[in-house]
Amino acid sequence: MPTDDRGTAAHLSRSGVSDLFHIATMFRTGATLTRADVVRRSGLSRSTANQRLDALISAGLVIGTESGSSTGGRPANLYAFNRSRGVLLLADIGATAMRAALCDLGGEVLSEIDQDTDISSGPDAVLTQVSANFAELLTRGGRNRSDVLGIGLDVPGPVDFATGRVISPPIMTGWDRFDIPGWFATDFDCSVVVEKDVNAMAVGEHRFSFPEVAHMIMLKVGTGVGSGLIASGRVHRGADGAAGDIGHIRLALPEGWDEEPLCRCGNYGCVEAYAGGWAMARDLRFAGKDVQNVNDVLHCLRSGDTTAQQLLRRSGRILGLAVADAVSLFNPSVVAVCGQLADTDELLLAGIREIVYQRSLPLATRNLQIVRSQLGPRAGLLGLSLLLSAEIFSIQRIGALTGP
Amino acid sequence: MPTDDRGTAAHLSRSGVSDLFHIATMFRTGATLTRADVVRRSGLSRSTANQRLDALISAGLVIGTESGSSTGGRPANLYAFNRSRGVLLLADIGATAMRAALCDLGGEVLSEIDQDTDISSGPDAVLTQVSANFAELLTRGGRNRSDVLGIGLDVPGPVDFATGRVISPPIMTGWDRFDIPGWFATDFDCSVVVEKDVNAMAVGEHRFSFPEVAHMIMLKVGTGVGSGLIASGRVHRGADGAAGDIGHIRLALPEGWDEEPLCRCGNYGCVEAYAGGWAMARDLRFAGKDVQNVNDVLHCLRSGDTTAQQLLRRSGRILGLAVADAVSLFNPSVVAVCGQLADTDELLLAGIREIVYQRSLPLATRNLQIVRSQLGPRAGLLGLSLLLSAEIFSIQRIGALTGP
Repeated sequence: MPTDDRGTAAHLSRSGVSDLFHIATMFRTGATLTRADVVRRSGLSRSTANQRLDALISAGLVIGTESGSSTGGRPANLYAFNRSRGVLLLADIGATAMRAALCDLGGEVLSEIDQDTDISSGPDAVLTQVSANFAELLTRGGRNRSDVLGIGLDVPGPVDFATGRVISPPIMTGWDRFDIPGWFATDFDCSVVVEKDVNAMAVGEHRFSFPEVAHMIMLKVGTGVGSGLIASGRVHRGADGAAGDIGHIRLALPEGWDEEPLCRCGNYGCVEAYAGGWAMARDLRFAGKDVQNVNDVLHCLRSGDTTAQQLLRRSGRILGLAVADAVSLFNPSVVAVCGQLADTDELLLAGIREIVYQRSLPLATRNLQIVRSQLGPRAGLLGLSLLLSAEIFSIQRIGALTGP
Repeated sequence: MPTDDRGTAAHLSRSGVSDLFHIATMFRTGATLTRADVVRRSGLSRSTANQRLDALISAGLVIGTESGSSTGGRPANLYAFNRSRGVLLLADIGATAMRAALCDLGGEVLSEIDQDTDISSGPDAVLTQVSANFAELLTRGGRNRSDVLGIGLDVPGPVDFATGRVISPPIMTGWDRFDIPGWFATDFDCSVVVEKDVNAMAVGEHRFSFPEVAHMIMLKVGTGVGSGLIASGRVHRGADGAAGDIGHIRLALPEGWDEEPLCRCGNYGCVEAYAGGWAMARDLRFAGKDVQNVNDVLHCLRSGDTTAQQLLRRSGRILGLAVADAVSLFNPSVVAVCGQLADTDELLLAGIREIVYQRSLPLATRNLQIVRSQLGPRAGLLGLSLLLSAEIFSIQRIGALTGP
């Protein structure tokens, strides 16, 4: 092998990292393997495969586990991913609440804090709260900052995924262009991933509930309305991180409305100004109920208030208009609906289904499932842990974990 | 190297084909290389790289070309892709016209036939016409059927790309589930690729005009209205091959309309029933003009008919409503507009731009270009040649060209 040929040497080095990445991925995705398995599955020579496996073992990422029950002959030693080699810190930040969690490297939640927040109080206030929660979670878990291999956050607005900056968010006052990874850089020396909330939810729901599906829409109906798109198995963020923005599509005036309602974003006639949780709260107040926010709407629904139930069905139908367009354009196999208003009962889904099956072309709906999210409020955290693990154990970064 | 280890042997064989594929791709995408270049660029050992190159040379896919002007020392032999090793037969089939072409392996059109057709006369009639054109093109080019390495067709309806079957097409009477590759199997022993017309156009426009763009929409406005989506650089076909179906989105009644117009597809209120070429012909007839089809509409526009110009601007605004939704959902960097009505003048684009920039969120439009297609009517053929070449020279198929 000519080591003076710089092209070849550079290739071998890339190829070495790539082998490491593939072997780590085998273990990370759950396989328990013997050395012979690693050789066979990797397709590498015995010596190369063993070298890479040894690097992962030295780095503590792979550990020996109990011996396999061999079919005759002496039992072979088994190796598995070491989920406890480090921890992940995650925060799923909504408009009015956050969910922070300490996870192992397999994405299992070890400890969790749920808390009210106010996204419009700005990045300093909200991220101070996140940092305090992270410190508390590390203490509870008996872990140090140096154990943290990655931090993942999702926020209710568009994000430039490559840099972790929030960009032109409609409802996140004071966050535009804020450098979230920079906030954590003084306390932690690790990867920081920032994602739009609905994208993280789409990734979680896709991997856990519909792993075999190529194209999916995750529709979130809470205080606002948004969606995350999965195209060919991967999140579709679009050119500006703005894809999936179904809540601010401007509908033509639906039957029964005299004028376009004003939206939180400053425009008129957006989908969420008709059908979001805050719009339902507005309409229930107009009907004389004492309702301030989406939690009060949920209370009305749970107590069997018929006005609230009629409004929820109406919201479903209006959402159906927007989902029908999205189905015609994107042609997904699954529309999964999450968010507080989807968690209550089937009225919202009934409204969506009624309009989508009526309006979309038969070809695009004959294999279409419109279902409630199976992960519910956990979808965001699960998606974040997947995105973060993919980053930490990527070809670009895995070298940093296994040393020179 | 243990040849009795079946896993390893299988891997080496896959890896050998993969090396062949990568080297062929280097040449196919235009590189002219010395043997040393191939070694360096492939990152393979000198002996393996030379073996793969020799296989491509024996197969006639790569040929020696003039010697390079070396910087001192003896000149090195240069190798290049042999575009004349075989030919491609392509047919871009619209509702009322087809364009058939004989191309070299680099996608250059050697000979072309433009002809009227009627897609609703069914697959036997239309494909008989295609076969006759292919025979004529081979005769003109002095080529035999055995020279044909691939056949590519696009049609104005949804296609299951994997099998080449048309599925539930709204306007292609008699074509549902028709096995297009099967039609050609008796006469030709080669790959057959079938694609929806707007997808082929999107691929062509993307590669030639916007190769650096990740997400793009190709909007076609001719007799009907459709679109092809490029997501992360690749065509997004959706779960049923129905993605991009912007023409049959059902709009809420726009201002100035008393009732929803009936669409060709049998539904009411589709985008193309307001804004497509056939709808403009209908409205010009209603205004007392002698207009039967989109060609007559174009004649009116070219002769400066003000009613026709007003209708074109109105079509643009109505298309803008649908494009604004598509931009919010898909967040492309580019919307390229093609089709006969886009080729005439800027009125249609002006209408689309007016509404999109008014309705879509600033984040999704601040980097958005809405432009006329730069390839125009050639986009479909160029896209087909790219899709077909990718198939013929794919990892799965390249072995068939280079023998055992």
